[in-house]
Amino acid sequence: MQCSTGNSQSCGNSNSEENIKDDEVRYPDGSVKLRNPNIELMDQDILYHLALGSGSHDLVEMFGDVKFVCMGGTPKRMENFAHFMMKEIGHKLPTGTQLMDICQYSYRYSMYKVGPILSVSHGMGGPSIGILLHEIIKLMYHAKCKDPIFFRIGTCGGIGLDGGTVVISEDAVDGMLNRYYQVPILGRIVKRPTRFDKKLIKELKALADPEDPYDTVTGTTMCADDFYEGQGRLDGAFCDYTETEKMQFLESLSANGVRNIEMEATVFSALTNQAGIKAADICVTLLDRLKGDQVMAPKEVLNEWQVRPQILVGRYIKRYLQMKGRISLDGHGSIAVKSPRRFKLVQQESQTFD
Amino acid sequence: MQCSTGNSQSCGNSNSEENIKDDEVRYPDGSVKLRNPNIELMDQDILYHLALGSGSHDLVEMFGDVKFVCMGGTPKRMENFAHFMMKEIGHKLPTGTQLMDICQYSYRYSMYKVGPILSVSHGMGGPSIGILLHEIIKLMYHAKCKDPIFFRIGTCGGIGLDGGTVVISEDAVDGMLNRYYQVPILGRIVKRPTRFDKKLIKELKALADPEDPYDTVTGTTMCADDFYEGQGRLDGAFCDYTETEKMQFLESLSANGVRNIEMEATVFSALTNQAGIKAADICVTLLDRLKGDQVMAPKEVLNEWQVRPQILVGRYIKRYLQMKGRISLDGHGSIAVKSPRRFKLVQQESQTFD
Repeated sequence: MQCSTGNSQSCGNSNSEENIKDDEVRYPDGSVKLRNPNIELMDQDILYHLALGSGSHDLVEMFGDVKFVCMGGTPKRMENFAHFMMKEIGHKLPTGTQLMDICQYSYRYSMYKVGPILSVSHGMGGPSIGILLHEIIKLMYHAKCKDPIFFRIGTCGGIGLDGGTVVISEDAVDGMLNRYYQVPILGRIVKRPTRFDKKLIKELKALADPEDPYDTVTGTTMCADDFYEGQGRLDGAFCDYTETEKMQFLESLSANGVRNIEMEATVFSALTNQAGIKAADICVTLLDRLKGDQVMAPKEVLNEWQVRPQILVGRYIKRYLQMKGRISLDGHGSIAVKSPRRFKLVQQESQTFD
Repeated sequence: MQCSTGNSQSCGNSNSEENIKDDEVRYPDGSVKLRNPNIELMDQDILYHLALGSGSHDLVEMFGDVKFVCMGGTPKRMENFAHFMMKEIGHKLPTGTQLMDICQYSYRYSMYKVGPILSVSHGMGGPSIGILLHEIIKLMYHAKCKDPIFFRIGTCGGIGLDGGTVVISEDAVDGMLNRYYQVPILGRIVKRPTRFDKKLIKELKALADPEDPYDTVTGTTMCADDFYEGQGRLDGAFCDYTETEKMQFLESLSANGVRNIEMEATVFSALTNQAGIKAADICVTLLDRLKGDQVMAPKEVLNEWQVRPQILVGRYIKRYLQMKGRISLDGHGSIAVKSPRRFKLVQQESQTFD
């Protein structure tokens, strides 16, 4: 096993303080520059898992205005988030149009666009979000997006936190508590530091409303490669340890500042950091792992909880757009409603004559 | 970093020859036994990512007849495979019914059932297929399935193989060419040997038809945790190596018997082996990595190629069911067609009066 010593890679040292230079990742106008000299020499770049390409699509025209890329596990959650943000920022669609899944023909990820916001599903686990990040970062480059910000809005298990708590990741560790994402490249283990943007974390934390009927906390996030044994659950297809050993492990995580466990944080933080893109991981806990393993809350409760990270990210985006004067709140959606009462009457009449 | 020495785990030694004892993984009647004593003590077991549960669903009634579990990346491919197998084995649905996605409310995986066949999507990468395997193996246990066989029908990059070649994995290695799947469990690295069933591989290879307009080969499969740098591609968002270094790496893979690269083989082989379940990984190459990185073939060609592993698995299942006398080929689908000509006329008439 060799360790890479390339200048863009850190090895063995989890406290590596490699700093990304601005001119490596940004052009003077703030648009995204790739740390891969090959791409600009290619005739066309096919973003295979997105069903998009730099030769086939006018990516600047389609995505040039994107400022926020929001990712979450399931297509359904990201479709809901897109509709939620339409209301939040008063985004109107032209009459006779509706949101569509831009990546529907990839059958891999789902992607929705609401003005400056992309809402994309990333599937489960590091490799799945890793493929997406490579292609989305390249999309940012092709589309000449300026200083984009990435959010992951996910679900997780909490450590000593009630179900429904929102956790903003301060940093990400793997299952061995390493602060890097480790990937074999050309037969050598490359370790990339996991880092989130500290200022962005603070800004998000400040947007938690004291009136929210739940807590919003910050802490270290453990990223596991498995849902069962990798997270110390007793209820997988296999289990070679006792409940006491499990509890000792979870207590040791807690003692190390770990507040939640999910399955994407290391890859998400390492690749965005490597690309010089500001990013934050905001998850809601579905249960307290100190109290159990199974996700027992009813679907309606889980659905309500899932919205909480979306609300926080929604507040951030809304505030940003308001400050830039890029928001209008005089309507939303594709239908301009003058009188809600008459609008409803017309709908009912119409349904009668089905 | 500690290494586990538990009796069901192998550590450090990639040639570990731990043999799974039959009575650890099977009851006397051949039904699946779990290597986790906790499950039978649970009041109910919620298979969270499948939206099924042992307390809420009669899993024996629903799934007791399952003999084959077929997995592939996308929901679309597995829906197609279910329809393909309906025709292949002459499976009839009751009038007025159609196949449905059993896991539609999980928003995680898609699952279709065609008689003794389950067709399930697994997403991308080891963690995603790992979650599915834990829950599907538990499903086999709850449903009392007897000696099930698992197939993965996937896509991959070939090493020195033309696009469209079918590769049956003889064994699986990770990005460092280790013959095990490595996962941190309670803070210790556990290494599980990757093994496929040799007899099953031979049987599948024998079902390749000399008339097939493509090759079917066997060889070692490398399982990467990433599509771009992890597979030595030059076209990711990052690239710190040269084309020469990439080619040296791919040539060294070839010299080590690696015929293809995909992203699930180690987890798939290790977990099925650990559960004592016969399994095979059959993939079609989408390109020859010695000639390029981008998947350039048109969608229609890719779609035709994707069917090839399905055809091979279809032949295996059909032959098995024929030998057991469990197949009837006197019709298929939910509609019993007496005269295809009149059937079509009725359809056309009906459409006219839309």
